Amino acid sequence: MPIVTVQVTREGTRPDRSSVTAQEKAAIIAGVSQVLLDVLNKPLESTYVVIEEVDLDNWGWGGLPTVHYRAKRALLAS
Amino acid sequence: MPIVTVQVTREGTRPDRSSVTAQEKAAIIAGVSQVLLDVLNKPLESTYVVIEEVDLDNWGWGGLPTVHYRAKRALLAS
Amino acid sequence: MPIVTVQVTREGTRPDRSSVTAQEKAAIIAGVSQVLLDVLNKPLESTYVVIEEVDLDNWGWGGLPTVHYRAKRALLAS
Amino acid sequence: MPIVTVQVTREGTRPDRSSVTAQEKAAIIAGVSQVLLDVLNKPLESTYVVIEEVDLDNWGWGGLPTVHYRAKRALLAS
Amino acid sequence: MPIVTVQVTREGTRPDRSSVTAQEKAAIIAGVSQVLLDVLNKPLESTYVVIEEVDLDNWGWGGLPTVHYRAKRALLAS
Amino acid sequence: MPIVTVQVTREGTRPDRSSVTAQEKAAIIAGVSQVLLDVLNKPLESTYVVIEEVDLDNWGWGGLPTVHYRAKRALLAS
Repeated sequence: MPIVTVQVTREGTRPDRSSVTAQEKAAIIAGVSQVLLDVLNKPLESTYVVIEEVDLDNWGWGGLPTVHYRAKRALLAS
Repeated sequence: MPIVTVQVTREGTRPDRSSVTAQEKAAIIAGVSQVLLDVLNKPLESTYVVIEEVDLDNWGWGGLPTVHYRAKRALLAS
Repeated sequence: MPIVTVQVTREGTRPDRSSVTAQEKAAIIAGVSQVLLDVLNKPLESTYVVIEEVDLDNWGWGGLPTVHYRAKRALLAS
Repeated sequence: MPIVTVQVTREGTRPDRSSVTAQEKAAIIAGVSQVLLDVLNKPLESTYVVIEEVDLDNWGWGGLPTVHYRAKRALLAS
Repeated sequence: MPIVTVQVTREGTRPDRSSVTAQEKAAIIAGVSQVLLDVLNKPLESTYVVIEEVDLDNWGWGGLPTVHYRAKRALLAS
Repeated sequence: MPIVTVQVTREGTRPDRSSVTAQEKAAIIAGVSQVLLDVLNKPLESTYVVIEEVDLDNWGWGGLPTVHYRAKRALLAS
């Protein structure tokens, strides 16, 4: 009876989207549940998946809010 | 000093509600805190309870978003 | 399909025990699952309970490891 | 590669605010990331920080929703 | 920068094993990281995966410790 | 009443250590509790800190168990 918790930033995969779509969420649920079936023989119906979308302000990386850290990395890479 | 985290889908217990009510939340908090007092002698004031309501789209079961999985089960049961 | 996570310090309820007993764990599982059935009508078989025992060194309270904080409070109370 | 999860109630530090500000979040991210660099030599860029703001209704203390518990404590203290 | 937490019971996939093997853990890590790359375009190096193995005593289902619940289900199915 | 969860790999800060020391844990607890006092005025005694040490096998990064990912990065950097 696995529980898989997926935490991602709340943002879209395309410029015209501001969050993960219902279709993408369904694909994540299907995909990680399948991994647990394939690797540990856990039946699909015994796996719970919880997706947590985290506002960009609330996610820190490199000691900074994510948006600032990405800007800094982009600057360093350019 | 226990911490109890309760994750539930964001939906009502009656058709006219779309989420857990404040009264229901208070009853969950009282109930689980009491369990820890009864079983482990943890004083009520040392227990934190955090309730996380998860959108239906964000909860997976049986490799599917919850709503689809429930529909599938209802179909199989009928 | 609720998930209840119960975090407690790894210690016994009596001086001759160093951890939560299997019986106490079963009582916690029964108790919190019952709360969710009573309050939100969640069937027992749809609730997962995960108990996490945390070493005393790894639990902080009042800016101190738990054992130090308890000693400080006992001192203040005496 | 530490992950630090900070759960706080969704409320302001001043009467005119109803939540944690972006600046306060940035200060939390900077502060806890620095602690892990100072104590465990974890490079800033390997630390993720996730801040979870929890509605007051959803946070229990003393067997009560937080607001009720605070009122009770204030009463007892007066 | 996703974080994926996978909670499973500490038990083997074969009678001669008492826990998840290192190889199975590597397969879980590879699999769920790939799902996030495929679905959300998250680069592998930005995904953290944490696997938590939970003792059977500490996992409840159906209001019972897992081992008891499984025995009950097996009995009902027979 | 904040809860801070700190997840780190179970390993030492020096070659002769295989885990985080009690002193380092105390420093983490003191440090992150202080951040919440400084930034959000949360009294020390209302903050819980839980440190979770995760076995290296159980932590994935870059689609690989941590040890393999570090070896790969070291190779690429050399």
